[in-house]
Order: sequence, then structure tokens, then C-alpha cells
Amino acid sequence: MRISNHQPDFSRPIDLKNVRITDHYWQAYVNLVNNTILPYQWEALNDNVSEAEPSHCIRNFRITAGLEEGEYSGFFFQDTDLYKWLEAVGFSLANKPDEKLEQLADEVIDLLALAQQEDGYLNTYFTIKEPQGRWTNLMDCHEMYSAGHLIEAAVAYYQGTSKTKLLDIARRLADHIDRLFGPEEHQIRGYDGHQEIELALVKLYEVTGEQRYLDFASFLINERGQEPNFFHAEWEARGRISHWNPGVVQTRPQLLEYLQAHKPVREQEVAVGHAVRAVYMYSAMADLVIHNADPDLLEACRRLWSNMVNKQMYVTGSIGSTHHGEAFTFDYDLPNDTNYSETCASIGMIFFARRMLQLEPKGEYGDIMERAFYNTVTAGIGLDGKHYFYVNPMEVWPAASKGNPGKHHIKAVRQKWYGCACCPPNAARLLISAGQYVYTANSDTLYTHLYIGNETEIALSGRNVLVRLESGLPWNGNASLQVVSAEGSGSFTLAMRIPSWSSETIFHINGVPQQPIIRDGYAYFTNDWSSGDSIAVQFDMTPRRIYAHPQVRANAGRVALQRGPLVYCFEETDNASPLSSLALPKNAELKCVQDPTLGGIVAIEVEGIRAEDLDEMYTPLYRSAPPILTTPRLRAVPYTLWGNREHGEMQVWIRES
Amino acid sequence: MRISNHQPDFSRPIDLKNVRITDHYWQAYVNLVNNTILPYQWEALNDNVSEAEPSHCIRNFRITAGLEEGEYSGFFFQDTDLYKWLEAVGFSLANKPDEKLEQLADEVIDLLALAQQEDGYLNTYFTIKEPQGRWTNLMDCHEMYSAGHLIEAAVAYYQGTSKTKLLDIARRLADHIDRLFGPEEHQIRGYDGHQEIELALVKLYEVTGEQRYLDFASFLINERGQEPNFFHAEWEARGRISHWNPGVVQTRPQLLEYLQAHKPVREQEVAVGHAVRAVYMYSAMADLVIHNADPDLLEACRRLWSNMVNKQMYVTGSIGSTHHGEAFTFDYDLPNDTNYSETCASIGMIFFARRMLQLEPKGEYGDIMERAFYNTVTAGIGLDGKHYFYVNPMEVWPAASKGNPGKHHIKAVRQKWYGCACCPPNAARLLISAGQYVYTANSDTLYTHLYIGNETEIALSGRNVLVRLESGLPWNGNASLQVVSAEGSGSFTLAMRIPSWSSETIFHINGVPQQPIIRDGYAYFTNDWSSGDSIAVQFDMTPRRIYAHPQVRANAGRVALQRGPLVYCFEETDNASPLSSLALPKNAELKCVQDPTLGGIVAIEVEGIRAEDLDEMYTPLYRSAPPILTTPRLRAVPYTLWGNREHGEMQVWIRES
Repeated sequence: MRISNHQPDFSRPIDLKNVRITDHYWQAYVNLVNNTILPYQWEALNDNVSEAEPSHCIRNFRITAGLEEGEYSGFFFQDTDLYKWLEAVGFSLANKPDEKLEQLADEVIDLLALAQQEDGYLNTYFTIKEPQGRWTNLMDCHEMYSAGHLIEAAVAYYQGTSKTKLLDIARRLADHIDRLFGPEEHQIRGYDGHQEIELALVKLYEVTGEQRYLDFASFLINERGQEPNFFHAEWEARGRISHWNPGVVQTRPQLLEYLQAHKPVREQEVAVGHAVRAVYMYSAMADLVIHNADPDLLEACRRLWSNMVNKQMYVTGSIGSTHHGEAFTFDYDLPNDTNYSETCASIGMIFFARRMLQLEPKGEYGDIMERAFYNTVTAGIGLDGKHYFYVNPMEVWPAASKGNPGKHHIKAVRQKWYGCACCPPNAARLLISAGQYVYTANSDTLYTHLYIGNETEIALSGRNVLVRLESGLPWNGNASLQVVSAEGSGSFTLAMRIPSWSSETIFHINGVPQQPIIRDGYAYFTNDWSSGDSIAVQFDMTPRRIYAHPQVRANAGRVALQRGPLVYCFEETDNASPLSSLALPKNAELKCVQDPTLGGIVAIEVEGIRAEDLDEMYTPLYRSAPPILTTPRLRAVPYTLWGNREHGEMQVWIRES
Repeated sequence: MRISNHQPDFSRPIDLKNVRITDHYWQAYVNLVNNTILPYQWEALNDNVSEAEPSHCIRNFRITAGLEEGEYSGFFFQDTDLYKWLEAVGFSLANKPDEKLEQLADEVIDLLALAQQEDGYLNTYFTIKEPQGRWTNLMDCHEMYSAGHLIEAAVAYYQGTSKTKLLDIARRLADHIDRLFGPEEHQIRGYDGHQEIELALVKLYEVTGEQRYLDFASFLINERGQEPNFFHAEWEARGRISHWNPGVVQTRPQLLEYLQAHKPVREQEVAVGHAVRAVYMYSAMADLVIHNADPDLLEACRRLWSNMVNKQMYVTGSIGSTHHGEAFTFDYDLPNDTNYSETCASIGMIFFARRMLQLEPKGEYGDIMERAFYNTVTAGIGLDGKHYFYVNPMEVWPAASKGNPGKHHIKAVRQKWYGCACCPPNAARLLISAGQYVYTANSDTLYTHLYIGNETEIALSGRNVLVRLESGLPWNGNASLQVVSAEGSGSFTLAMRIPSWSSETIFHINGVPQQPIIRDGYAYFTNDWSSGDSIAVQFDMTPRRIYAHPQVRANAGRVALQRGPLVYCFEETDNASPLSSLALPKNAELKCVQDPTLGGIVAIEVEGIRAEDLDEMYTPLYRSAPPILTTPRLRAVPYTLWGNREHGEMQVWIRES
């Protein structure tokens, strides 16, 4: 069923098995995941990384399975670190067999089977620590959230290996939950405090064809925020206590905005509350529009997207202006040095953007997806694959991270692991599944959203087609999409995104300049394509100055630099401290230079201005004399690679003078 | 005993009874305290102010005295709100008899007598709520702090009225504490978590001549931060619990830096921890230097003063860069929109500065005392006398105060009262005792520190002298110090502070231009003064641009405006939102204009630059087009009067372009 006859068929991502990433830039990340991150994170899950915060994750499963004695440790959603790791393994195996890795995964799946309870329940926290407390505190305790990550892992592992053991475990758990919750009299009309299972259930529906999983996802989304409010009733029923302050009777419950349960999702106007919860929910909402005719829900998706992207998003494609609740604040409140910009939240934005692209191929979705991918997600992982950012600030002063409690969450150095380690495995699973974001396709059109080099097999207009995408991004602006082979004949369409950062984009087909039809940021090429046909693209890679909306107080008088999809930043190691004393003259030339550091990059050089403090002997805090200005040569590097050299200050937005 | 023979006699403040404030600017504040603030705060203490947070203060005393049944309410230091009010009443009565007010005070002093316990103990929280808990948690519970404020009130009330009833109550309490605490075997080697009693004990010594009060103050100061640490031992002894989380055994105690008890006071290098505690302690340290030869302690005072003033102070003379613990953070960390800058902390700075001036008359102390007085303390009180700021930010965006949890402490509007209402009565007692800060004097020299008009009687070189200070500050720069009458003959010195903000200060004596001896920011005039002699002073009142040290990240590229002692700010009501979009061209002329608003002020007008957002139909968050600039006429008003008209944004530091 479709919303309207005027809509094109909704497009779908391509099975990962059919997409081989060959990109010179992204291959490095894929290799990092396969060779370093997955093994490293396995060790972290097993508490084998020295000087890192321990995970306890595997141990909790072993205790639940009766293989070990001991106490539960970690957050109550610790299970999900393993689930995300397993999901990443599933994605990895879809593309690249790895016997050892698969064996490791199979063994831990056996452990999950042992840990699963008779009735299908699987959650180490409640099984070890609060067996009587199951399903009594959905508001705080993430039980469905954890189940959702198990389901996602199971789907990915099934798709990657065709093995069904994990899928069976996940289905037993999903069935258990589906029996307990729902609209029927004997069921609980409840939903989870942390959205996640909704999008997972849609995946489970897609892979099993079982309509009830889709219906359950719809129930959870539709029920959320209805009156009387489930969370309030649940809170009253458990004696007004919270997981976070055990034993203390609260005078009022958690704010519902935080959980996006303050009103029915269709009525939500602006992005509020915990950012990751929000984007996971929006993704599920878009999923439901894909599968059910639901114009109101689509309208809500568009509205929330627009608010988030046009009012509450950082230039790096990150969200969450405050660490208080890892949350959105309000329109245009985008402080640079106290923001949260959680890696996971940008991953969730990518989920949402991809689904919106499936619904309506518009450049704005692709632009933001690219922005988050190239800037924030990869910033979350150090070049060594073993250090991670949870928070992705626009500005770092290491002394303040240490000395000002309001900035303690701003880490100046990537950490080996986190007590709450949601981000590292989340980034791993996204990077290793990048192939699911490059394209979407419907029956006759292949949409290229991200210029990440790859080879992909796909059926278009009934023809089996092999395409090859080559791309110089992010360093140079040459890309091409070649039809390597195409069986049979018949017309199909290759639609290619024109990034908003490219002020002039030139297309050639087989060397002949083109003036393609351009609709909503995509160039459409419809042809009876033959083997060897090729669309060449040239993007404008001139470095650009970016200005923020004047309502963004924090960036008044400031400018950020961008080249291609990459946002740049200034690091202390290139430019000396304090970075705040630097400014860019309005007309200073931005010069691109090849730089062998950081694995080889294009840096931006510019003659800047620095307010010096030459009079070291007499330095009053306040004075009438304006600072003395010098004109040092400044260097900006891609934000996503910051903090990989000598540690120090970092700044994205620089004063313009 | 004096530190060194080369030092002049330490000077002393002048008995309030001998100083009559006649200043056109400050008289308004004195009247506000007498006519509005004292009656209003009395109502607040009695919970008679509607829509204000209730105080419960008087009620707690009535319950303690057995006059009323009920539960204790409020913070455990709620008593001090009354004590500060009583102290202000004492100051008020020193200058201006008020039968009704005195009767009110006498009645409440009778109540205090009833509430005092047999053994001299007086503290409503512990007496009502935790009679067994007395003196078991000095770290958290402010018992000596509360006693200190009672002592200060008693001294002021005695000096203002010559009545001894309150002084006797205070002495019984002081004696009770002095018996329990001290260096003897049978005593507790402890001190309070919140310094305050130390400076109060010095006052008690000064008024009673009882050496043991001075010795006890010395003990408390000298013992602080010694090893083994008293607070750690006390915390262990009470089972590792804190007042703030009753019933929860802590894994570690409160950080000692917060309480300035991390090392002996003589070894403290930088200002750390809770700002009010710090400056109250520094004041007591300076007091002890005044009374005891103690060069190490003087050195510590100078060092801590210098760190605070040259590294951690806001341009308005306020301190405390973070609301986390209402505390200092670290050098040059002076954020404008998340600072604390508590009114009480600036009051404490004034205490400290006045004492340093007694030790060494240096302009820097007077400058800062003036800065805090004219800018922060009066900012803490609305023009109506019934609304107060606890926090004094450099920049306010009301939407962020509401919508960003990291800025919830930044109130955009003065409040009627506070649950923790330390600041309103503290500001009242300071304003009404302004006469104690205008001058200090030793046997032959009268130092004029603040140009606040008054008439004062004083003995100098054995002569009874009546001087009259007239001053146009803060609006015009003409002042004069007249010897109205001087009995007998003999030389004495009139020393007058030359404010650092006056780039040229001109003196005339009886119309004759002078080139006085200038030492450390004071001009010295020694003469056999006769009745009718007059020193006229002209200050340079040209409005000035102030720049912050380049290490102050928050003010890079920004400028503040100052004229005379007043720091200026931009308010939304004069300049439209967002204020962040405004900038001052480097060479724009600062024009002074008479402005009848706010009781009549000199405003500063300047042609500024505004980044407009004209394209209202299409306003992407990030764009390549630089903002369109217009050149509006901007208006700055004295910071201390902000928030007295239409509520909105406010900004002290403005971009310079």
C-alpha cells in the first residue's frame, strides 16, 4: 500500500552482501572495524582492556547462564554492548567471511541461548538482580530497548550468515514481549522509556514477513504519549520510585518530554528530550510510513526532521545541546563548549535520514546523512580504533574540561572505553554497514546518496546490473558511477545526489557533458544503460566559509570552514594556545595544502590574526589597551580527525574580523 | 604589636555613628534599605510575602522557643537570614533612630533569648530537628557559621543602640563554642565548614576587648587544613554520611578544596572552592594580621587577593565562575553566561578589600572594593528594593535560562525571595553600613577610599575634625573633601584614592592646583588644616573600552564599556534581540547622554553594527552567505541597573569589529 499514486515507489537499502566498499577513504574505516575495533571491543566486553572502565557485559551473561557465580555489574542496559557488537559482526560477515570471528560470535550466541529464560525473557540485569522487577519500570529500565538491540543483532547475523539460532532467540524474546504488551484487555498498554525496539521490530518483520511484528511496532509508536500516560500510571503503581534513586519516594516523575512521551508522536512539533531516544523513534516512525499508508505520520517525520536540522543541529551533523539528559534544549541554542553531540545521536540521525530518503529522495536528507557520517561518526573513533569520543564538542579547552564542572563531560582526549559504552559499538556497526547508506533503490531507480566507492549488484527494471562507484571524496571532487555490466536491456534510472556544498556540479556521460533533470537535489539519468556506460561527476571542492543563523548566539561573528563534506577545525598543535585569540580576516584566502599527517589529508591554510599578550611582566585581567595583533599562518584540519595528534585545544568556529 | 616599624599604623574604619551618608546616589540606596528593604525583609522572614519562596525563619525560632508547635523548615542555616537582618537594623539605628524598627528588633531579640538553650547553644535547626546531632557535622552544617552571623548582628546592634541583650546572647553562644573547640586535650580541634565565625570573633574581640575571642579566631584559622584533616576524621566518626544525602554511606567525603581546608591557610596559593567561604576566610585572615604580627599570613592574603583579582574576577568585581558549588574554577576561566558571581561573594570581597586597605593603603584594593560596590552589590537589588539577584551573570538569554539546564541558575528576572536567601539581607547590611567603607583612618591620616558623599567626625592628630565629602560620582567626576571644622591645630594627612579608571585626576586645594605626593594609588596631602579648607578633585569620566586578558577565552574579540566606576551593559529593551548580533566598530565614538530612565542615568550611545537576518522566508541554520550588516544606534546602561525595565537579554561584553 502506498500513500499516494503520485509518489514514486519507496526505495530500499541494498542487501549488504551485494555491496563491496572499495573506497580509498572509507575502506580504511572498514578495515579498522574488521581488524582492530571488533577484536578490541570483544576484549573490552570481556574486561581485558587495561586502564579502561570495565564492561562486565559478557560476565553478566555468564552469571545469568549459570556458568559463573557473582554479582551483576554495569548499567541495566549493559547487554546491548554485546548486541551491537554482534550486529557489527553480522554486517562484517555479510561482506567478508572470517571463520574465527564467526566462531567467536557463535559461541557467544550459545551463551545467549543459555542465558535466555524458559519464557523467552532475556535480560541479565533483571534476571540476576531484580527477577521480581521485570516489566515494572519501563520508564527507566530499558528492557525493550535491550531487546531491540538483540533483535537488530539477530537480523544482521542472520543476513550475514544465514544462521537462525540468534534469530530464534530474538523471536522468542519478541514473542514474549508481544504477548505481554498490546491493546488487548489482558495486555499492558505500555512502551519503553528508551525507544529502539520499534525500529528493530520493523526489521524483524522485514526479514520474517510476520505481520504481527510490524503491528506491534505500530502499537508502540501509536500508544506513546497517549492519555492517560502510561509512564505516570506505572510510576504510581510502583510507589513513585525511580531506578536512579532507589528507596526514595519521588515528589514528581521524570519529565515526559525527556522520553518523547509528553504527547502522541503525531502531535509532536519540535525535537525534545534525550536525543538518541528521539532519533531512534523518528526512524521507526519513518519505517512505519514506508510500510503503512500514514500521511499524518509522514508529516510528523518531516516536521521533526525540519526542527532538528534547521534549528537544533550542529554544523558537524550532531545533536544534543546539553549533557543534562544528553538532550535537545531549544531552537538555536547551540553552545560550542558545553554541547553533548553524542556519537550515537548522529548515528540515529543517519538512520532517520536514510529512511526519509527511502520515502522521498530529497537532497536535504542526503546532505545531513553525509554531514553526520563524514564529521561526527568518524570523529567518535580514534585513528587507532581503540579510543572513542562519546561527546563531540565544537570547542575544547582541556583545562576547562578538567577545572570547570560544567564542562567535565567534554573530554579532551578519546577514552579507551566508557562505563556507559553505547557509542563505540554503535559507531562500529554503522561504519561496517556503510554500504546500506550509499544507495537506496526501487524497481527502476538507483539513488546514489553517498559518494563512497563500491561495487554493487542490483536488479533494476528486471535487469541484473553491476555498478561501480569511484570517488575521490573527501579529498578531491571527482567521482564516477559506471555500469560495469547490465544483463538484457530496458530503461532504468541512475539518480545522483548533488551535495549542497558543491556550488557547481558537472556531469558527463561517457565523456559527453550533461544537463540532467534535477529534482530536489538529485540529478536523474534515465537510459537503456549498457555495460561500460559511465557517469562522471565533478564537485566543486573550493573551501567555504560557513555562517550560522544570527539567532545562534554562540556563533555570532564566527565562521566555520568546510571543504567538500568535511567541516574543519583548528587544533592547538598547529596554531598554539589560546585558540580563542585567533581570527580570520573576512577576505583572507583559504588555501588547500596536501598534508601527510593524519594518514594524508588536505589541510586549509590561511593568514589569520592573533591577539597577542606580549607584555608578560604586566598582565592585568582588564585593561584599556586593545590587544596587539599579529598575523600568523593558521592551519585547519578536518574536524573528524581532531585529537589524533598532540592533545590540546580545538575550535570549529573561529572569529571573523 | 605591628609587623614592622616601617609600616604605617594600620588604619581602622570609622564608627558608623560618626558617618552620615549624604550622597545623592547612595542616599537612595540607604533610604531604600531603611524604608523598603528592612520592612520587606521582615515580612519575608515572617512568610508574609505572597508568591515568594517562604523563609520559615522566624517560625523556626518560635518553635525553638516553645511558642509554637511545628516542624523545622528551610535550610539548616536559615537562622542567619534573621541575624543579617538584625545586623542591618543595628547599622541603621547607628545613624538614624527609628523607634518602631528598634522595638521590632528588641522583640525578636527577646525571642532569641527564649530560643537560646541553657548551655548557651542557639541554633534552631539542631534544637528542633537533630538535638543529638549538635557539633557532629561541622563540615556540612554551618553551626559556627550561624553563630558567626549572630555575633556580627550583636556587635552591630550594640554599636547602634548601646543595648547589650543581644550581645550577651552572642557571648553566651561564643563562650559555649569556645569551651568545646580549641587546642586543649579536652577540646575538639575542629572548625566550621563555612567560614564566618572567624571574622565575627574578631569583631567581638574588638568590641569587648576579650583576648580569648581573638585567640579563638586565630585557632580556627590556623587549625584549618592541618593534617590529620579534621573534616575527614569527623566524617569517619559519623559513619561517612553527609547531611545532603541522609542515610547514604559515601564512598568519599566532600572535596576539601571546596571548604578551603585542603591545606593550611598560609600555604594556599590560589583561590579555590566556594567563593563566599573563601572571601569570608580571607577577611578573617587579614583581620588577624591587623591584630597580630603575622607576616606569613599577610603574604597569604596578598597572594590569594592577587590570584582572585588578577585571574578569577569578573569585570564587575564578582567572583565564582561556576554554579557547581558556587565556586571558583581556575585561572582565566570566566564564562559570561554560566557564571555564578554571587552577590554575597562580592560583599565578602568588599570585606576583604577594606581589611587589606587597613593593612596597606593601595589603590588596587580600593579599586576592586569600588568595582564590587558600584556594580555587583547594587545589581543584587532591584530599584524597588523587593526583588533580588543571587547570581549576577555577564550575559543573559532568558530563553536559555529556561530551556538550557546548564543555565537554570541564571535568572533573567530578580526574584522576590530565595529558599536560600543569603544574598538579600547580606546586601542590605552592606549598603546600610556603606559608611564603614568610605574611609579608614589611623591616628594622623584619613584615607578616602570611596567617593560617597558624607559628613564625618573624626579625631586626627588629636584634633576633632568634621569633614564633608561631596561627590558627583557615578555620573560626574567632580568631588571635594572639605574640612568643615577642625579644633585646635597640628598637621594631619588627607589621603585620597586615585581610581585606576581615571586616566587624569586633577587636585586643587582652595582653588590652587596641586601636584601631590602619590603613593600606591593614593594622593597624600599633609597640612595644618583649618576649617574651610577644601580639596577639590576632578576625575576623567571619559567612557572607556575595557579588554580582557587574552587568556580569558570568553572575551576574545570582545570589549566592555566603563565610565567612572560603572561597568555598562546592553539590554534588549534598548537594542533588540539577539544582542549577540551586535558589534562595536573599533573606532566608534562613545557618546554620553543624559537619560531620565532608571532614576536618571548617563547612558552611552554608539553607532554599532548588527548582523541582520533579513531573509525571513529562507533561513537555513548554516549558509555560505555572510550576514547582512546594518549600523544601528546602540545604547548601553549601567550594569548595576539592568533588569529594572522590560525583561530581556543582557550582555556586558560585546564584540568589537
